[in-house]
Amino acid sequence: MESATHQPRHEATNANFPRDGEGRVHHVGVKKGEGGPKFSYVQSFLMTTVANRILSVGDHRRASVIASLFDNPSSNLVTTSSRGFTVHTGTFNKVPVTVIATGMGFPMMDFLVRECRAVVEGPMVIMRFGTCGTPQTHIPIGSVVVASEGSIFIRRNPDAWEQDGSWDEKESKYIFSKVVRSDPEISKRLAENMKKMVADCQVYEGLGATADSFYASQGRTDDSFDDDNANLIDQMLEKYSSISALEMETFHLFDLARCSKGTIRSSAAAIVLAQRRSNAFLDKATTERIEKEGGRAVLLTLSETDLTAPSNGN
Amino acid sequence: MESATHQPRHEATNANFPRDGEGRVHHVGVKKGEGGPKFSYVQSFLMTTVANRILSVGDHRRASVIASLFDNPSSNLVTTSSRGFTVHTGTFNKVPVTVIATGMGFPMMDFLVRECRAVVEGPMVIMRFGTCGTPQTHIPIGSVVVASEGSIFIRRNPDAWEQDGSWDEKESKYIFSKVVRSDPEISKRLAENMKKMVADCQVYEGLGATADSFYASQGRTDDSFDDDNANLIDQMLEKYSSISALEMETFHLFDLARCSKGTIRSSAAAIVLAQRRSNAFLDKATTERIEKEGGRAVLLTLSETDLTAPSNGN
Repeated sequence: MESATHQPRHEATNANFPRDGEGRVHHVGVKKGEGGPKFSYVQSFLMTTVANRILSVGDHRRASVIASLFDNPSSNLVTTSSRGFTVHTGTFNKVPVTVIATGMGFPMMDFLVRECRAVVEGPMVIMRFGTCGTPQTHIPIGSVVVASEGSIFIRRNPDAWEQDGSWDEKESKYIFSKVVRSDPEISKRLAENMKKMVADCQVYEGLGATADSFYASQGRTDDSFDDDNANLIDQMLEKYSSISALEMETFHLFDLARCSKGTIRSSAAAIVLAQRRSNAFLDKATTERIEKEGGRAVLLTLSETDLTAPSNGN
Repeated sequence: MESATHQPRHEATNANFPRDGEGRVHHVGVKKGEGGPKFSYVQSFLMTTVANRILSVGDHRRASVIASLFDNPSSNLVTTSSRGFTVHTGTFNKVPVTVIATGMGFPMMDFLVRECRAVVEGPMVIMRFGTCGTPQTHIPIGSVVVASEGSIFIRRNPDAWEQDGSWDEKESKYIFSKVVRSDPEISKRLAENMKKMVADCQVYEGLGATADSFYASQGRTDDSFDDDNANLIDQMLEKYSSISALEMETFHLFDLARCSKGTIRSSAAAIVLAQRRSNAFLDKATTERIEKEGGRAVLLTLSETDLTAPSNGN
């Protein structure tokens, strides 16, 4: 395993899209390489850091676990940027793939998609495998939700707390976006692979909801702050009854895929860690088993995806 | 220096506000301790991890540099969470202080403020010292901007890309919030300390603008995506002519301080790394000098702040 931590080695020179003197993008720390059909994992680290098929996870440990499932993990190319991204590139079933630990929050997904798009040639597929809470009483912890119906975005509206009297107190202080679709063909295949490959696990297909925070915008209550969100879970289900996964990144992946001029296909799945109605939280041993078995299902789906197919979902 | 990496040691049990069996909050990895007047850095790591006076920075390296300015850095208490936060606690001028590397994006600021509020007793002051771009031609790279006028929030509106014909193409696809104020007394003191303590550096006081991404919402253009943001910098200045700093976290700090029921005071400063009109980008040597000298100015301001004063700004 070749490994390196990137503090940019040379100075960034362009404030519009900063890269260092080696051409590495400023936050994810990767540069243009030979991703795609020409890729071989014996190429040098400096030549190749990101494949056309990317799996985004939050946690650095989860990224390492999934990268250990690659064909030849000892040959994986690994880079850690000073801004919190860890990138593992190798092959799965002889197809070049990259797993990236992205951290938390949709702005981190923005860095991932835009900076990887900037260094990869040709069509891409980007999938997310994260963790989530569920507002649905019938979905237990330890399930997997595939965002086959796409995702919505839930944002706190800060102007609702402006004390100039302009806010109508009858309005919700949280904003629900319209739905952005995921790629239906990839989502279907992902759900099939999850069902086959993850033991003792219910796989649900539904609508995802990405929130702009872990707490207030997901209806978590906290007496220390004036959040006015005690009924938020009811409100979201009233508007979109099939919301099955609440998390912090997926919507933005689908939204950027939609805006990528047809160059990025995307789908996502998440392990249900938190049951938001019963307040149950999944134990670590089960989480770690599902992230490994489910990670393999996502890698298989990534490796099977036809990059040249039209992105009709987005 | 005592140091530890926290994977939660025990299981989280409450999906509304998850903590591990030791009482550590799920993402920042800290627990309730003896912050405040009773604090002493010789107390054990397990007793104390966060002080009432917190400095939030993005970069882990910058946090370490600033923590090295503490009274007795070899006694600093350091914890790194598996979710990307590094927490350094010690004293500055004999006053307990904490520096936290927060990573990037306002959702990370949300974790910091809420999870630290959950483990600290009594009133708090939280300040940010970050980096920014400026849209003002008269502010050069290598300056420091203090957000004395508070901050606005700039968000991309995803519904503007919905292709159902419902979007009025004359409207901006980006939303500008109203202003949230910073604490005026702390901001004034912060600007004074910066002017005294940072060499060869212009200090400006102005309005901050926090964007929900580094790229599209800050007017960075990228042909790979349909962003429709070529005029965004002009639009923001038309609406708020004094915007001096463009970054990704500060607004949310001020907004949460506003909603903290009077328990959190806040202000912020940022080093101008990027000049968005000329496209200049600050060199590393100057950045590192200003982050050290400016970091000391923020620590001094934190240590001087009267925690019992009313938070009239927020």
